[in-house]
Amino acid sequence: MTVKQLSLPELADACTDLGIRNVGLWREPVRAHGLEATAELVRDAGLTVTTLCRGGFLTAIGTKERARALEDNRRAVDEAATLGTDTLVLVSGGLPAGSKDLRGARERIADALAELGPYAERHGVRLAIEPLHPMFASDRCVVSTLAQALDIAERFPAHQVGVTVDTYHVWWDDTAPAQIARAGSRIHTFQLADWTTPLPHGVLNGRGQIGEGAVDMREWKGYVEAAGYTGAIEVEIFNEDLWARDGREVLSQTASRFLQHAIQPPDAP
Amino acid sequence: MTVKQLSLPELADACTDLGIRNVGLWREPVRAHGLEATAELVRDAGLTVTTLCRGGFLTAIGTKERARALEDNRRAVDEAATLGTDTLVLVSGGLPAGSKDLRGARERIADALAELGPYAERHGVRLAIEPLHPMFASDRCVVSTLAQALDIAERFPAHQVGVTVDTYHVWWDDTAPAQIARAGSRIHTFQLADWTTPLPHGVLNGRGQIGEGAVDMREWKGYVEAAGYTGAIEVEIFNEDLWARDGREVLSQTASRFLQHAIQPPDAP
Repeated sequence: MTVKQLSLPELADACTDLGIRNVGLWREPVRAHGLEATAELVRDAGLTVTTLCRGGFLTAIGTKERARALEDNRRAVDEAATLGTDTLVLVSGGLPAGSKDLRGARERIADALAELGPYAERHGVRLAIEPLHPMFASDRCVVSTLAQALDIAERFPAHQVGVTVDTYHVWWDDTAPAQIARAGSRIHTFQLADWTTPLPHGVLNGRGQIGEGAVDMREWKGYVEAAGYTGAIEVEIFNEDLWARDGREVLSQTASRFLQHAIQPPDAP
Repeated sequence: MTVKQLSLPELADACTDLGIRNVGLWREPVRAHGLEATAELVRDAGLTVTTLCRGGFLTAIGTKERARALEDNRRAVDEAATLGTDTLVLVSGGLPAGSKDLRGARERIADALAELGPYAERHGVRLAIEPLHPMFASDRCVVSTLAQALDIAERFPAHQVGVTVDTYHVWWDDTAPAQIARAGSRIHTFQLADWTTPLPHGVLNGRGQIGEGAVDMREWKGYVEAAGYTGAIEVEIFNEDLWARDGREVLSQTASRFLQHAIQPPDAP
């Protein structure tokens, strides 16, 4: 999604050229290219799909709408399995129109996971609840903190339901480091984006390129590593300015920012 | 601030006409009208000033800048005392340019309060730390939750330093009800605004009129009352659309929304 201006074949080529071996995919471009064709593309390019984004949107109240959401999530699990990734990221969904009941919405997510967790397990896929920044609590994701995500995830086995740790969503939270320790093997993926202001209208596409904002990437990498995380680290930036630029150039810049701010020692030249 | 299109004399008149006996003021319009003139105006109108907004911005690192901030806060305390209010609301300040150290910034706030708390007490004024929504953590207020605010406030006597509970900033936080109970007599003021989306560019002026968003006002009023709060309830909305309308009409609408959504039983006609 960071370089959504690239088609999937262009992305695969650019990854190969830059020596990037892992890639997180979103469902929409996969659907556009074709699921089987994408699976073949990444296989041929020798790429590992780290996660598929996204399932979720499980807060609806109506029976029909809930059934539709569950069906869509089962399809997302199938797609993840076909792409060879073991992790489906879940964005839980916002408040239904007119509702002010965050607690009830969170419970409906847990109800849905009781059905989806075993289904995902049978397909070799883990569900990773992603707490989104509290500014998305009403319209996108009623799960706003790692504590809330873990309160739900811990009702299920860790190989069925875990969490996504994304620096953009948790960086402000002084309780997040302890929650990362609590999460342990439930950290199913770790994502980086930087926090920059001013936020744009609608706030969705204002994530900052690594190194341009308020987040200390090494610090958060340290927390997840101390909790035992050894998986891939994803960079997931939604940013209109990055999308307007040449995709290969953005991918190259992102890779080098990642090395500079997350991997190399802070005083590296 | 909800009706900043009204001059202070117009505001006093409108309050009198609508039977509103309490008003929260901001420093800028007070300064524009004159401090002594404002004190006389509210006295003559029989209005009680609930709080003065705002002191704070205490996160600077440099010695000179810190001294300037402390001096400005002492002036704000003096102004509060002159206006006859016992509460100065503090917006703590964001990260200094280039800093990623939220913890350090929060500690500098505590350091400043060790100087300002006793000064305020001598003038009969309490300092009310206002946690701002986490979307303001980098550029406006590094104190994002009631828990963080209380962690600082509790280092001082409750009659020196407490907190502001504003529904707009805490509504998403499932730990906030317990923190309100923890706060008890440290709740120095209680403010209402509703959460609506989409947020505008810069997110500052997107607060919703009471009843138009995701916040259950009665629920939060119940929490602060259960914690022993008996003070005034302020409505503080920053909203370009409200500011573009006739100020008296907005004040009247706000008063009636307040009654409808915070005071009357939910099934009132």
